[in-house]
Amino acid sequence: MRIALGIEYDGNQFNGWQSQPHGNTVQDALERALLKIAGQPVAAVCAGRTDAGVHGWGQVVHIDAPVERPLTAWVRGVNTFLPASVAVTWAQPVTDEFHARFSARSRSYRYLLLNHPVRPGVMHGRVGWFHGNLDVEAMRAGAAYLLGTHDFSSFRAAECQAKFPIKTLYQADVSQQGQLLCFDFRASAFLHHMVRNLVGSLLFVGKGVRPPEWMATLLACRDRSQAAPTFAPGGLYFMGVEYDECWRLPSLGRIIPASAMISV
Amino acid sequence: MRIALGIEYDGNQFNGWQSQPHGNTVQDALERALLKIAGQPVAAVCAGRTDAGVHGWGQVVHIDAPVERPLTAWVRGVNTFLPASVAVTWAQPVTDEFHARFSARSRSYRYLLLNHPVRPGVMHGRVGWFHGNLDVEAMRAGAAYLLGTHDFSSFRAAECQAKFPIKTLYQADVSQQGQLLCFDFRASAFLHHMVRNLVGSLLFVGKGVRPPEWMATLLACRDRSQAAPTFAPGGLYFMGVEYDECWRLPSLGRIIPASAMISV
Repeated sequence: MRIALGIEYDGNQFNGWQSQPHGNTVQDALERALLKIAGQPVAAVCAGRTDAGVHGWGQVVHIDAPVERPLTAWVRGVNTFLPASVAVTWAQPVTDEFHARFSARSRSYRYLLLNHPVRPGVMHGRVGWFHGNLDVEAMRAGAAYLLGTHDFSSFRAAECQAKFPIKTLYQADVSQQGQLLCFDFRASAFLHHMVRNLVGSLLFVGKGVRPPEWMATLLACRDRSQAAPTFAPGGLYFMGVEYDECWRLPSLGRIIPASAMISV
Repeated sequence: MRIALGIEYDGNQFNGWQSQPHGNTVQDALERALLKIAGQPVAAVCAGRTDAGVHGWGQVVHIDAPVERPLTAWVRGVNTFLPASVAVTWAQPVTDEFHARFSARSRSYRYLLLNHPVRPGVMHGRVGWFHGNLDVEAMRAGAAYLLGTHDFSSFRAAECQAKFPIKTLYQADVSQQGQLLCFDFRASAFLHHMVRNLVGSLLFVGKGVRPPEWMATLLACRDRSQAAPTFAPGGLYFMGVEYDECWRLPSLGRIIPASAMISV
């Protein structure tokens, strides 16, 4: 029986999503807990693998349950065996046609950036940081060039395993709440490091080092070396996955840290 | 020369504020960093000592600087030597009459509580948690009984070092944003564990186990054993300290996590 699960986690506590020999990944923690409930190994397939330090709010996973258990066992039962920094938030039966990754229509990521002269303390590992002045309107104008279907090779990490660099970006919003900037992206899929690379380049625009049109130039040149460096992982949140309504899944994680922090 | 400093920290990374032999406290970390800047030991006196796991947003400290340094040295310079989870946010010269603790007119604390059937994951150590239904209006009515000058012995930890249990509560608000409850308290001073004990008892009211008037009964009986257990430290934030305007200090920390998280 195939079951979809909603997962959230504090990325600071794990070496990313994907299973590794040392075992300190979200997938490893989840599969260890699933083993306790099922009594036998259960593989977890996720919608989007996240890097070390990147947080999950609305990660979605599917498993093929080898035994029958009440749905609460796949939520509260599994949570009993998970570290405190990761939790299953919901469970929903699906047919075998559902695949957490391949059935996804789009993914949403948010990047939170503290824009303040002094580096973060209490929010360390939860926000990126830039100390200088930023022109939010210029960044909005730059982000608008990204919308639509493009070759995002300029924003793709060398180790990216995606077959094609062409993705469709449906949303690229920049909002501001006091000293906190919030970058919201929704796309058919994302390349490795794509959001952190986009944010890095948008900051060049915000600083006035490059004009907004530079984002279009970067798309056109398809050359990673022309774009800005990758921004820090701690400000990045995997917000959720959109699936066809036929699957009747909760659309997003339960809480979003948007208007997240308010400035005084 | 006396200098006031604004400090913020992630309480999960420290064994509370006050210096201990093992050295893993906020005061120890701060004094180690101050030593690097001053070249000799500098003692830090804080406005309110926080327990292990409790976060600082608007902690205020004073030091007697044994050497003259530009103000930026006491902010960015010190931050260079501090762990990433603690930061000095501002520095301001004051006269010797100023005392971070004794000059304080009032302190503000906030408690964030996730009210959701499933325990927190990404917000672990940043919010308290209660899984069942809560009557927010009843909690508001209960909190109103706390306002004013009272003997708060029923909410005082056994190890509390305060000379008198009588404090004046100026604010006791309960607000709700989706699945997040926010308890805001401002008082002349707080007893040890007072906020966490107040939140614990307000939850008995929210659950319907006790009526709102029970808060008045607890104040009157001055018996810790009658009130509810202490709530978890991770949801507690020391928001700030109010001083007389003559000191011209920034009134609060730079960011507050109030409307903090919004629910979807």
